[in-house]
Amino acid sequence: MLLLAIDAGATKTVLRIATPSGDVLAESRGGPANIATSVEQAAKSMEGALRSAIQTAGLTEDMLHNGEVKWIAAAGAAGAEVGGRPEKLKALFPYLTIFDVRTDAYTSCLGAHGGADGAIVAIGTGSVGYAICGDRNHRVGGWGFPQSDEGGGARIGLAAVRHMLAASDGRIRESDLSVAVRHYLQELGLDPMTWSVGASATDFAALAPVVLRTAKNGCGAAARLLESAGKDIAGLLDALLKKDGFSEMKVVFTGGLATELLPWCPQAVRDKGVLCQGTSLDGAMKVAMQRACLT
Amino acid sequence: MLLLAIDAGATKTVLRIATPSGDVLAESRGGPANIATSVEQAAKSMEGALRSAIQTAGLTEDMLHNGEVKWIAAAGAAGAEVGGRPEKLKALFPYLTIFDVRTDAYTSCLGAHGGADGAIVAIGTGSVGYAICGDRNHRVGGWGFPQSDEGGGARIGLAAVRHMLAASDGRIRESDLSVAVRHYLQELGLDPMTWSVGASATDFAALAPVVLRTAKNGCGAAARLLESAGKDIAGLLDALLKKDGFSEMKVVFTGGLATELLPWCPQAVRDKGVLCQGTSLDGAMKVAMQRACLT
Repeated sequence: MLLLAIDAGATKTVLRIATPSGDVLAESRGGPANIATSVEQAAKSMEGALRSAIQTAGLTEDMLHNGEVKWIAAAGAAGAEVGGRPEKLKALFPYLTIFDVRTDAYTSCLGAHGGADGAIVAIGTGSVGYAICGDRNHRVGGWGFPQSDEGGGARIGLAAVRHMLAASDGRIRESDLSVAVRHYLQELGLDPMTWSVGASATDFAALAPVVLRTAKNGCGAAARLLESAGKDIAGLLDALLKKDGFSEMKVVFTGGLATELLPWCPQAVRDKGVLCQGTSLDGAMKVAMQRACLT
Repeated sequence: MLLLAIDAGATKTVLRIATPSGDVLAESRGGPANIATSVEQAAKSMEGALRSAIQTAGLTEDMLHNGEVKWIAAAGAAGAEVGGRPEKLKALFPYLTIFDVRTDAYTSCLGAHGGADGAIVAIGTGSVGYAICGDRNHRVGGWGFPQSDEGGGARIGLAAVRHMLAASDGRIRESDLSVAVRHYLQELGLDPMTWSVGASATDFAALAPVVLRTAKNGCGAAARLLESAGKDIAGLLDALLKKDGFSEMKVVFTGGLATELLPWCPQAVRDKGVLCQGTSLDGAMKVAMQRACLT
């Protein structure tokens, strides 16, 4: 029996093979694997990473199919909340004895608290609040951009572009922020007025560092924008902990923007935070181990 | 000499052939023609419409190329503000003696005021403010969704989805609006929480009628959302008329959502409105006529 843990993210895949006792045999990386966007693309990324890990571990590809090894796998996958997608993904891996597909919010939360109960608020390109309490779990936000992902980098970048466009139009006054966003785009050789037509969440999120820098340099408009994002994060957390039995949970702030955005969140939000114990991949490995124990 | 006017819109093309004195010989329709999205697709839609109009007018396709007829053409094209696109489009129509490509905002404004100076605020899926004063013109907003198009149908639909998602998460209270949006999507067999992942501006705009209906039935949340859209329209108009020499302009409200949204705009906005005299196609024909007179 071997354990397989997969962190299937929107920008990359990370995969780990371990023994039932938890000894890591290999880790590898693969391409994007958001199963809401494309199950086929995600499967391709995962298979690429799996082949590479098998090689690193000194195993052969035969051992995936010949029944010699029982594969107990678990994935935390971006987009797994979209109906039917986990089932579609599982069907593409018939050689895995068990393949447990969860949302990456679930595995991140499990990993962050070392398998114990707790809550996370992830702040990266998007945002999501997630909490696990025994066999109950609860999620707030993270419904995608631009409709949700409040407080995430893409929403911050979108607000910055709106501010710059309104200033260019003369609808509001120019600020250090409007000037900084315009210059940033111009220096990349882009037209600030039309650049954002068809821009992706990732494109908008690239402007978040510009906002953070401008706010640190004393721009009131940038500071207000970040405080508004901080209030959005507080709103996520409040709704998350309001649920029965969840109010005393410890909270881990994860994601690439968490450290930078937390100073702009209300004090009550910051007071809740504890240190992170592990990643979404660690969480997926915990799921695989649980499944292995039940087998 | 023959005149050719083209209204090249994001969803359809309308084309008219007329004599230099303005007698219409034929009108026809074609596919989508947003030159920001695809110049090639736009050219294909225009050529299809042109062939059909030539047939209706009793002309032959030879007459496009053999030099027998001088073609003076003008288009008001969606996306013409994107650098280099008008030039690219013109290059695909070498047989037109003159081909003047303007933004559809310009031709709409010219058409709306029968060729006289004036302003328009277009409120449809998107929104834009535009004004012409002699040889000066001024534009506010209309920089695309979700970053601009304030007060347009897609922005109203986006705000409605955000409201529904926040209510579903327990971040805010349920309202008649959150319930109506959820039911609307469920009745279409869609999952309200994940439907908007990858939804287009047109998809979001389909929710605007739900907001308008719910507001008319007395929902405060829907009313506040529309009042906020109305304030956005007021902001466009203020910035438009703030420019030197533009303050006393007459304003035409155009677009599929104008009539429904105007009651939610501040009184000062409504007081500015005058009746529309013509379409973007009429405006394009005026450009073609002006060019013909100068030839």
